[in-house]
Amino acid sequence: MSTHSEHSAVTVLGLGPMGRALAGAFLDAGLRTTVWNRTPGRDGELIERGAVSARSVEEAVAAGELTVVCVVNYDASDAILRRDGVTDALRGRTVVNLSADTPDRARDTSDWAAGHGIRYLDGAIMTPINTIGAPSAVFIYSGPAELYEEHRPVLDTLGGTHTHLSEQIGRAAAYDIALLDIFWTAMAGYAHALAVARAEGISARELAPFAQGIGAILPPLFQETAEEVDRGTFSGEDNPLTSGASTMSHVVHTSESHGIDAGVMRAAEGMARRAIGLGHGTDGFIRVAEMLGRSGK
Amino acid sequence: MSTHSEHSAVTVLGLGPMGRALAGAFLDAGLRTTVWNRTPGRDGELIERGAVSARSVEEAVAAGELTVVCVVNYDASDAILRRDGVTDALRGRTVVNLSADTPDRARDTSDWAAGHGIRYLDGAIMTPINTIGAPSAVFIYSGPAELYEEHRPVLDTLGGTHTHLSEQIGRAAAYDIALLDIFWTAMAGYAHALAVARAEGISARELAPFAQGIGAILPPLFQETAEEVDRGTFSGEDNPLTSGASTMSHVVHTSESHGIDAGVMRAAEGMARRAIGLGHGTDGFIRVAEMLGRSGK
Repeated sequence: MSTHSEHSAVTVLGLGPMGRALAGAFLDAGLRTTVWNRTPGRDGELIERGAVSARSVEEAVAAGELTVVCVVNYDASDAILRRDGVTDALRGRTVVNLSADTPDRARDTSDWAAGHGIRYLDGAIMTPINTIGAPSAVFIYSGPAELYEEHRPVLDTLGGTHTHLSEQIGRAAAYDIALLDIFWTAMAGYAHALAVARAEGISARELAPFAQGIGAILPPLFQETAEEVDRGTFSGEDNPLTSGASTMSHVVHTSESHGIDAGVMRAAEGMARRAIGLGHGTDGFIRVAEMLGRSGK
Repeated sequence: MSTHSEHSAVTVLGLGPMGRALAGAFLDAGLRTTVWNRTPGRDGELIERGAVSARSVEEAVAAGELTVVCVVNYDASDAILRRDGVTDALRGRTVVNLSADTPDRARDTSDWAAGHGIRYLDGAIMTPINTIGAPSAVFIYSGPAELYEEHRPVLDTLGGTHTHLSEQIGRAAAYDIALLDIFWTAMAGYAHALAVARAEGISARELAPFAQGIGAILPPLFQETAEEVDRGTFSGEDNPLTSGASTMSHVVHTSESHGIDAGVMRAAEGMARRAIGLGHGTDGFIRVAEMLGRSGK
């Protein structure tokens, strides 16, 4: 197992805001950091901080044992990696793909890597850019545990918490998808709530403290209802689906009375009504998780 | 102004789980508490704890100066209150309606009350049943400030934080709608994420700690983006709408690859794509709040 030292080298492909943050954290840790971006001119500040700017992907990946890829999706990472010169340069080296995409794409990339003698870990970054290098950053990985342990000293320099979830290569992307599902749906609800509030004469600043209160009750509720889902019990004693659907319809009606599209809440209410129609009206809302999964392949 | 004492009397109409919790908190505070429910037999435990069971709504509201109503919605509270005998018994007395419904229904109920010499406050309970009587309960009210101050000593016995938002009677319901919008949308996202995770071999218990991590980043993000919305700036430097929409489409594709309906995320992605189509692709996601409000009446 290698250990992190000033002699460790790492390559970062992709210098969007997140890629630049990753490269910056590697530089802060004293690593020899080589960077490359499809569009030139993104590496100015990193070069000032000591990064080596590679003229090609081939040159970039040849600079060290570990290449971290952070681009918009796997179409973009395929376009960078799946070319003969790059594939040849990567043989025997390790790629950690921190780009976001689906579990299927992670599995496909792993197959491609295995077919070309490239060592491969799939990962995801679960926290915003401003956490990189800080204790609140959260990184998840899947793939060979041994490979993860080998590169962990370098990855740890990105700060925060790093978790190897599974040898199954699609696992990190699956967590990523599930957590993005929660994040974006919640943000869609918040954006919509701000629009409805404003139509009712309430400013965003006025609503925000109460919205934060709602945000604060979610984590314990996530824990509690997760246990219910795994047990297969869905107690609606305190808040049955029928009550929930009723208040959801109030949201829809109030939005639409102001001419504000309520498509997200209509879809959420539709799930609740479907569960009620299946005879689950006295269950709690989280019964919907079981119902959705029932139709799953 | 009256002060809370063991001589204060309060009436609770509606003995669902929340109504029973409210009556229980009044009893714990030593108030003379009269209770009534449309369906008999819900008051057994409350009577054991000292509540007076009224045989009719008329008798219930005549027992004190303050009647608190907590039923499923305003169709239900109208059915209870808007009858001649009840209206007569309420004349000169105060009704606080803590049922959930739309701002329009609150305004309509206020008009009805004013037309019959009934003093009226509209309210909403923003926290789950298990918070009632505890410091974490959150109650909001709108209507005449003087009337609120008069009854505040009794309302305070319900525990937690009580906020008078506005003299405008619809304001509490508007906050309620906006906060329910956030709550139910987030829960819909969580239920969906649990279903997708399970299809990928991840149990709810495994996902929950990471889901809690996402939950924890929401409150500060709510504050930060609220300020952006009020300022009319929507910085997408760290996370532009185009990136967000891309990851949303990953959620849709992964869900549907497992046969799991993705209607909620499809609607959320639709909002993001609409904002991108309007030229806001480099803005942050919260631009959607402004876009939705633009079409508002």
